[in-house]
Amino acid sequence: MTPLQNLDEILERVRDFLAVGDVESAAAAVAALRPAVAADIVAALHPADGADVLEELTPEARVEVVEELDPKVGAKVLSELDETERTDVASRLDPESLSGFLDEMAPDDAADVLQELEGGKAAAALAEMDEPDEIRELLAHDEESAGGLMVPHAITFRGTMTAAQAIELLRRNAPDEETAYYIFVTDDAERLIGVVSLRQLVVAAPSTQLQTFMRHDLITADVGTDQEECARILAKYDLLALPIVDDDQRLVGVVTADDVIDVIEEVATEDIYHLANVSAEEDVSDSVMIASRRRLMWLMINLPTAMLAAWVVSLFEGTIAQVAILAVFAPIITGQGGNAGIQTLTVVVRSIALGQLSVRDGWATLSRETMIGVVNGVAFGCVVGVIAYIWRGLPVLGVIAALAMLANMFVAAIAGTLVPLFLKAIKADPALASGVIVTTFTDVTGAASFYGLATLTIRYLVHP
Amino acid sequence: MTPLQNLDEILERVRDFLAVGDVESAAAAVAALRPAVAADIVAALHPADGADVLEELTPEARVEVVEELDPKVGAKVLSELDETERTDVASRLDPESLSGFLDEMAPDDAADVLQELEGGKAAAALAEMDEPDEIRELLAHDEESAGGLMVPHAITFRGTMTAAQAIELLRRNAPDEETAYYIFVTDDAERLIGVVSLRQLVVAAPSTQLQTFMRHDLITADVGTDQEECARILAKYDLLALPIVDDDQRLVGVVTADDVIDVIEEVATEDIYHLANVSAEEDVSDSVMIASRRRLMWLMINLPTAMLAAWVVSLFEGTIAQVAILAVFAPIITGQGGNAGIQTLTVVVRSIALGQLSVRDGWATLSRETMIGVVNGVAFGCVVGVIAYIWRGLPVLGVIAALAMLANMFVAAIAGTLVPLFLKAIKADPALASGVIVTTFTDVTGAASFYGLATLTIRYLVHP
Repeated sequence: MTPLQNLDEILERVRDFLAVGDVESAAAAVAALRPAVAADIVAALHPADGADVLEELTPEARVEVVEELDPKVGAKVLSELDETERTDVASRLDPESLSGFLDEMAPDDAADVLQELEGGKAAAALAEMDEPDEIRELLAHDEESAGGLMVPHAITFRGTMTAAQAIELLRRNAPDEETAYYIFVTDDAERLIGVVSLRQLVVAAPSTQLQTFMRHDLITADVGTDQEECARILAKYDLLALPIVDDDQRLVGVVTADDVIDVIEEVATEDIYHLANVSAEEDVSDSVMIASRRRLMWLMINLPTAMLAAWVVSLFEGTIAQVAILAVFAPIITGQGGNAGIQTLTVVVRSIALGQLSVRDGWATLSRETMIGVVNGVAFGCVVGVIAYIWRGLPVLGVIAALAMLANMFVAAIAGTLVPLFLKAIKADPALASGVIVTTFTDVTGAASFYGLATLTIRYLVHP
Repeated sequence: MTPLQNLDEILERVRDFLAVGDVESAAAAVAALRPAVAADIVAALHPADGADVLEELTPEARVEVVEELDPKVGAKVLSELDETERTDVASRLDPESLSGFLDEMAPDDAADVLQELEGGKAAAALAEMDEPDEIRELLAHDEESAGGLMVPHAITFRGTMTAAQAIELLRRNAPDEETAYYIFVTDDAERLIGVVSLRQLVVAAPSTQLQTFMRHDLITADVGTDQEECARILAKYDLLALPIVDDDQRLVGVVTADDVIDVIEEVATEDIYHLANVSAEEDVSDSVMIASRRRLMWLMINLPTAMLAAWVVSLFEGTIAQVAILAVFAPIITGQGGNAGIQTLTVVVRSIALGQLSVRDGWATLSRETMIGVVNGVAFGCVVGVIAYIWRGLPVLGVIAALAMLANMFVAAIAGTLVPLFLKAIKADPALASGVIVTTFTDVTGAASFYGLATLTIRYLVHP
């Protein structure tokens, strides 16, 4: 068997593993090869698959394979790697090899890689690059803004150009795959005045001027626009690319749909994690120690608020000692109040994230959620009250359980609405730690109202 | 002032409101107009903005305006409406008007509208349509599969066609905006053999055959592929459109990036809501009664599990009556165990959703999460133990609090991992109700271990 046949066979095996989603076995097959051979296999795969395989290798093996990749291929594979692994590889590569890959990457991806690197490494790689200026400009923008997300310098066309001339110009310049789905049309002062889709260009009569069939109702954003806002605009208007303009309406870059898909997933993950008190940086590939530390930090943040609730309970120790059944029911009242608060909180946080709710709608949302809280407080209070009554045959226990449940659901609705809106108003993340704050309200209210009412009515509870 | 000037002025005012995101005021200005005039204003806006304005009108006013819209414009606006409002409008329109709009919609959008309508209404509208067969075919697919998401019947080109011929064919057929970013190339048996991007077509020499420059490494899915899987494929390979093929590799439709953006947002919302025990159908525009009922249902589902935990606590009523301080500390142990379980659960659910984790990785994930649980259980157990000791000067209280905390974090890690993986394995939604199940485990374990240990060591707790 010649080595070449062997390579084809391995490639086929790797592809078979990938086809059934078994990335581990594919990676194991690649890991067994010398780095140069492994690089040939990775290069033969789709860059997204190559990246998947590399992610499963050890950091040392991974960088050895990447070093053997052709800069063009390596650039594509690096662009597809997850952030954690990409930063690790980039920091292990020497500045010359790294800059070779960066030169071949889309400028926005290259800027992303450099942004994640520590300063000295990034500066060294930047110094070795062929055209560092474009990247330097991108690095000056906030990573989470349109400026940090966009591909800079899309080609523009004058409105007086004909369709045939535009196609000819495109053919000569063979533009970047990512940005070429729209042709941006400018006036003599380079200001953006319209947009032509590639489809329109192809189907237009060759001698027509672009300005006669371009769309005028331009939707644009500027470099400072937040990336979430860019995602919302693209999703809302079903665009494949969003032009980014400066103060003089000149085109400075383009944000594309594929970057936005990543932003949407990232933002959703962040919201989900923050609502569950998990760090947004958490990743299944983190080591146990790193993950433990991150999660412990969040549990520690929760501890003072749990202690506050415990202190409120401790005020009623005397009552509990006399009527121990109260300690059986209290968790239902605090727990279900917390559940209701988290329901409200989640709806409000997600509605803010999807742009369906703004701080302006605060009063309307508060009154709506309070009404839901009262309706469900009455309904659920009755259910809990009846159960409490039946359990011990103590009518007063039923009444105070129902009242405490109602009070807690009322507070849950108010806290669940106001906490995220307040965080949004002060420009903080509405999801961040808001669950901790809301459940503190419900733990304290639930305990204070239930044990408090029990203390007031203790004579009906002790000797029935 | 002529009526026309007046209209322009109103339009400008509406646009000004929309520019600052004040949809309510824009809608109020439109609501004041006669339906025919309001329809002119809505038609002059971008369909996505027109839909935003319509969403703020009353259901009666909304349908009056829609009835006045030109079918072409109305089709676009209806496609952009949120599902709730769209279904409401569609059910209020008579079958003829509705079918007029449906005829002008992209087939996948028309199928979506019909899918949401009740059967009789949908059949009546379908009967009035010009080309109902294509829609009937789409309706036969599962709404959440590629078949339900795709636009059917994309144009295909033979591989032997030249670039110039392909452009000429495109020009004559002026294809649908949504699907025309890729040219799908087939062999003589109509089997899909390659893909050419519009960009490649435009920049290719006119006489080159498509098969010489098309891409061969096709990424496809079939009609039964789940919509989430389609989204993952598009996101992973940075595609703008995913070809859907039948068993004979013949093209039957195309799933596009803009539809997938909606799927990603929808799926993320569903996960977020299910993790918080909120119905995925919840919408900020729901009436208080509908929202109350939905949320109450979820709280009711939680009730039996809360009762189970309460029953466990009730087994230790005698112990609590002797040592009431236990009731002060128990919520910290159950609550923080619950928080840790939800942390694990959330990471596992999100990793499954993002395709980073499959049931196959179960053992690795379980051992990783269990290790995190033990590390944090020991660390956090010590913290809680020391606090409990200091609070009352009872060393044994500190020891049992620490041990119960450790036991609960251990169970939290196991339940947080296995519950979503089990749901995934039986093809259920890993997020659905899993929070309820996990916190039931931690509530029961926390109470049983803490009160249980206290009962065993009660002589050291009662008279210190």
